[in-house]
Amino acid sequence: MKTLKMGIIGIGRLGYEHACNIANRVPGMELVAVADANQTRAKEVAEELGAKYYESPEALCAAPEVEAVAIITNTASHVDMIRIAMDAGKNVFCEKPLAENVEKCKKAEAIIAAHPDLTFQLGFMRRFDHSYEVAKAKIDRGDIGDIILVRCYSQDPISIIEGTLEYAPRSGGQFIDMSIHDIDLIRWLTNSEPAKLWAIGGCYEFKQYKDWDDGDNVSCLMQMENDIMAYFFAGRAAAHGSAVETEIVGTRGTLRISAVPTDSLVEVMSEHGVCRECYQDFVTRWHGAYIREMEVFLDNVMNKKAATPNVSDGTKSTAIAFRCKESFLKNELLTMEY
Amino acid sequence: MKTLKMGIIGIGRLGYEHACNIANRVPGMELVAVADANQTRAKEVAEELGAKYYESPEALCAAPEVEAVAIITNTASHVDMIRIAMDAGKNVFCEKPLAENVEKCKKAEAIIAAHPDLTFQLGFMRRFDHSYEVAKAKIDRGDIGDIILVRCYSQDPISIIEGTLEYAPRSGGQFIDMSIHDIDLIRWLTNSEPAKLWAIGGCYEFKQYKDWDDGDNVSCLMQMENDIMAYFFAGRAAAHGSAVETEIVGTRGTLRISAVPTDSLVEVMSEHGVCRECYQDFVTRWHGAYIREMEVFLDNVMNKKAATPNVSDGTKSTAIAFRCKESFLKNELLTMEY
Amino acid sequence: MKTLKMGIIGIGRLGYEHACNIANRVPGMELVAVADANQTRAKEVAEELGAKYYESPEALCAAPEVEAVAIITNTASHVDMIRIAMDAGKNVFCEKPLAENVEKCKKAEAIIAAHPDLTFQLGFMRRFDHSYEVAKAKIDRGDIGDIILVRCYSQDPISIIEGTLEYAPRSGGQFIDMSIHDIDLIRWLTNSEPAKLWAIGGCYEFKQYKDWDDGDNVSCLMQMENDIMAYFFAGRAAAHGSAVETEIVGTRGTLRISAVPTDSLVEVMSEHGVCRECYQDFVTRWHGAYIREMEVFLDNVMNKKAATPNVSDGTKSTAIAFRCKESFLKNELLTMEY
Amino acid sequence: MKTLKMGIIGIGRLGYEHACNIANRVPGMELVAVADANQTRAKEVAEELGAKYYESPEALCAAPEVEAVAIITNTASHVDMIRIAMDAGKNVFCEKPLAENVEKCKKAEAIIAAHPDLTFQLGFMRRFDHSYEVAKAKIDRGDIGDIILVRCYSQDPISIIEGTLEYAPRSGGQFIDMSIHDIDLIRWLTNSEPAKLWAIGGCYEFKQYKDWDDGDNVSCLMQMENDIMAYFFAGRAAAHGSAVETEIVGTRGTLRISAVPTDSLVEVMSEHGVCRECYQDFVTRWHGAYIREMEVFLDNVMNKKAATPNVSDGTKSTAIAFRCKESFLKNELLTMEY
Repeated sequence: MKTLKMGIIGIGRLGYEHACNIANRVPGMELVAVADANQTRAKEVAEELGAKYYESPEALCAAPEVEAVAIITNTASHVDMIRIAMDAGKNVFCEKPLAENVEKCKKAEAIIAAHPDLTFQLGFMRRFDHSYEVAKAKIDRGDIGDIILVRCYSQDPISIIEGTLEYAPRSGGQFIDMSIHDIDLIRWLTNSEPAKLWAIGGCYEFKQYKDWDDGDNVSCLMQMENDIMAYFFAGRAAAHGSAVETEIVGTRGTLRISAVPTDSLVEVMSEHGVCRECYQDFVTRWHGAYIREMEVFLDNVMNKKAATPNVSDGTKSTAIAFRCKESFLKNELLTMEY
Repeated sequence: MKTLKMGIIGIGRLGYEHACNIANRVPGMELVAVADANQTRAKEVAEELGAKYYESPEALCAAPEVEAVAIITNTASHVDMIRIAMDAGKNVFCEKPLAENVEKCKKAEAIIAAHPDLTFQLGFMRRFDHSYEVAKAKIDRGDIGDIILVRCYSQDPISIIEGTLEYAPRSGGQFIDMSIHDIDLIRWLTNSEPAKLWAIGGCYEFKQYKDWDDGDNVSCLMQMENDIMAYFFAGRAAAHGSAVETEIVGTRGTLRISAVPTDSLVEVMSEHGVCRECYQDFVTRWHGAYIREMEVFLDNVMNKKAATPNVSDGTKSTAIAFRCKESFLKNELLTMEY
Repeated sequence: MKTLKMGIIGIGRLGYEHACNIANRVPGMELVAVADANQTRAKEVAEELGAKYYESPEALCAAPEVEAVAIITNTASHVDMIRIAMDAGKNVFCEKPLAENVEKCKKAEAIIAAHPDLTFQLGFMRRFDHSYEVAKAKIDRGDIGDIILVRCYSQDPISIIEGTLEYAPRSGGQFIDMSIHDIDLIRWLTNSEPAKLWAIGGCYEFKQYKDWDDGDNVSCLMQMENDIMAYFFAGRAAAHGSAVETEIVGTRGTLRISAVPTDSLVEVMSEHGVCRECYQDFVTRWHGAYIREMEVFLDNVMNKKAATPNVSDGTKSTAIAFRCKESFLKNELLTMEY
Repeated sequence: MKTLKMGIIGIGRLGYEHACNIANRVPGMELVAVADANQTRAKEVAEELGAKYYESPEALCAAPEVEAVAIITNTASHVDMIRIAMDAGKNVFCEKPLAENVEKCKKAEAIIAAHPDLTFQLGFMRRFDHSYEVAKAKIDRGDIGDIILVRCYSQDPISIIEGTLEYAPRSGGQFIDMSIHDIDLIRWLTNSEPAKLWAIGGCYEFKQYKDWDDGDNVSCLMQMENDIMAYFFAGRAAAHGSAVETEIVGTRGTLRISAVPTDSLVEVMSEHGVCRECYQDFVTRWHGAYIREMEVFLDNVMNKKAATPNVSDGTKSTAIAFRCKESFLKNELLTMEY
């Protein structure tokens, strides 16, 4: 069995998760190379996972044994990293969002277009979550008829609010950082693009978001080009947990994914009633999806398949997220121009 | 529209509930007479509900305008009350349990047998709860095939433990007071009688039950004459609420009634997760069933229909409950003899 | 105990439900008078429920014994009926919507203002549903902190689609006929009015709605004056049932009402998985609310309390519904002007 | 990072699952050796997973590179395999049940006792399922107080009934093959052994079980030595799926594991109501547990920790299962003698 030799650039929280998955949980993948701005940590992780440590992204990408690179660095560096890796002839898996603005997304498009024989896959992992795969299969099979409405909620839990607030100023804001996942889901589920949108929101508890031209809770109604309705809501402090819920209302049925966001089958009967405890942590929530997207990336590379989500999904979702933010700031109904 | 003129004997907590239902919530019934050992309270309720107050059960039953009598007195007096009412030519609705022992049940049978033209109905109200009616209809329609197992839980909530403990010594014990409902359900759902049974339990928290030859939590496995398996569990201090759950496992499907015992459609998302709040009070739980059993009693009286649950259901459930208690005290597997 | 003597005008499907409740299920109310354009049916119902039949609304309102009138006629006649009843000195309970346009709502306001000593209550029954009462109490107690978002779904079931389509042309359309309930809930829950709104939708299955300047499924995002976000969705053909769901997201918790719209506690385990069966009929869904709103009306009349929902709630919800329809037809973001 | 080099003997359905997990999903484990009576299949799997093929268990166990052996052969061969492996100085992981009778279990005990420095772990994987781990942690933390009752259901789905019936005659019967899992859970959760037990059941649909001295559905009530009550039920043809449910009722709360047995967070709203689809396959249900038990085995071997479930758990669960079967066949209440 031929394996794919992977390098990883960036081993923060999520990068480490990916590194462990590549090393140990994706049959057919092998972790051979690690690089990170924090060199001490890079060495440590390389040693732990049996990979080689490289001093720089350039050095890692220059290594002949590396066949593909996972880029899990900060958003601002994504396009540079893509260029370095692809120019060195490596296949690329890149975390979302593609870049911090549309111009840079287009640069990424150009780089990737210049390497048509290399695989590029973007890290919108929700598409690879088991429940989303189940739902998508049902939709594609026609179980719920034609889609009428897609509703998406994404909420971080109050239990991690300190980290959330600390990260907020450099996050890009709700639409770019958080809702971009729902924008991707909406595009994926509806096979369409938003035609018009109106985003609103506010600072319902954490007034500091005002200083960042942002809200702690926002939402947006979209009319898709094919007339499907889409609504998303994003919040930073849900009492119950890390709550990503998606609903697809169709003419023949409705699917609701993760109305109760839990990875346990335990019901607790206590003085609070009959309760289900929820995810407090997004990495736990998406653990399987992070593995599954790597399995699909592996298949795409090995079998030269067209990968999705691709760079265009990255550009479009970024453009839409920025348009949402503009609508939110102006409080105006906006059209999308592509 | 002809109405049925009802008298009520006994207006404690549950008696008052029945009185209000008869007066105001059962179309075609009218409350005309009230009697209670607590004469002050009887006068008060009579006035409130527009009925006449009587000094004694005998006086109430002698009143020509009274056509039927609801007996909601203490268990020990049931058979006397039935005799007084029937000898006065009144139809009778009597709360469960029929009597405090099998001998007295048989006396009731004799009284009722002597008045074949009068309706007698026993107050096993669970049969008339909407969810139980839905489940029974599905079973009778064959939706779940043949019945394999009936599982019944009855739990009082910890929130009312003080009252529970105060009442316990004169309650007759778990089997007679509480499990008799499940015994009735099992007989009703299986159309059969227990052939063998083994009951166990203990004092898991409230040691005083030992002094009353009882347990705070007990359970019993029964083999029915038609080989259906039945299991019931009864507890006095459930953390979450007044929890009566019944499950019917069939060869083609399973029905579970009230796994989450609530009368509200509200889900609460809080730091405890996603929760449903539960009944704390059995009268609230069975509000609809108390009305419905009166509607059925009305129909039985007006249209001379054979009423169920009938006196035989009372005798048999009492005999079984006593046999369970005997099994529990001896820790032996016992057969039922009919 | 003094009773309130009620007359009812209009005994169609919902009128008959109200008539039965008034006659038999609301302690302290008495049904004494019935009128309907269908005189045969009016006589029949009057006889069945022990009330007197009147040939016309005027005749009924002229009857001295009638103290209050329930108006359950077609929407176009509501204001006339209110005038007739109030000019005759009767308290009025009127079904929603108040009228078929804002101008007529204002006429109703003038009539009611001219009779300050008479009670007027509008039939937005959802406020009186047990689950909504539970949720409102939690909100008022501060359990979920400040409100961020209210989401409302109202869907009729596919099982009654023939009747739905037949009624559609004269219904006033989704916003006026159906979403007005959610508009009322949003106003009630947020204690605020919409400042801006954008409504979209389409004919996803039933193209005939196009001919009626309507959609078979529509939705609307609203920004309330106090910055709360509100989103409602209305559909005519849900596969699973009569599905009215409301969610209130707060800074400290979230409440979700009727995500699984059922009146039974039965879970069915079958080849379809673990299922809960849903309401197919709105009268069944709101049975308790129809009784409860009459109990509150009774209390308001007897104790001269200020009734809500009042005429102003009727005018405002109608104005908002029309503005939603205008937004839908123009596909524009609109402000509300009060 | 030192890895543990594993050989596997037996690569049927479940053996192959274990082989894949060892090869690819358990960090720190390596699959180096494969043997199976079906030599063609053994070669195939060895090649696929990058391991070496051996002609016999003896040959595999003689290989110096093999440090530990996973035994996933038919039950009758378990003890022989344990002997071969341990005599060759290998650590052993053995699938449940330990052996097909108590005498052979005792032989296994003797073999293992003769190799005190080798790790032996038995494959009761349910203990390692995430939901069971969550529940156990809550219990150990005292969240539900003292345990009153443990209720266990194990049902195979009707969707696989053909395979179930084919395998049945050589399965050992419900108690040995299926309920042994629940017996293990009961012992683990209660920290106690059954003192008395009564098992019943029958052939509710598949009369052929009679020929095998078995029932298609059976159940058993147990009184544990510490007075906890335990009840288990096993069936072969649940309509909804592979349904393993466990409930622990305590004096301060109740935990219910997998009342809705699903690995998806998708709710389906259709003409059947609001449904959750269920597992049809036990390997899918326990996928994570099979990995987790290997992780724990790895830790036990590497760090010389006392492994559980151990050989004694195998003997005791087998003895209890046989006693249940005896009770079922005699329809008698039996005591356990240890």
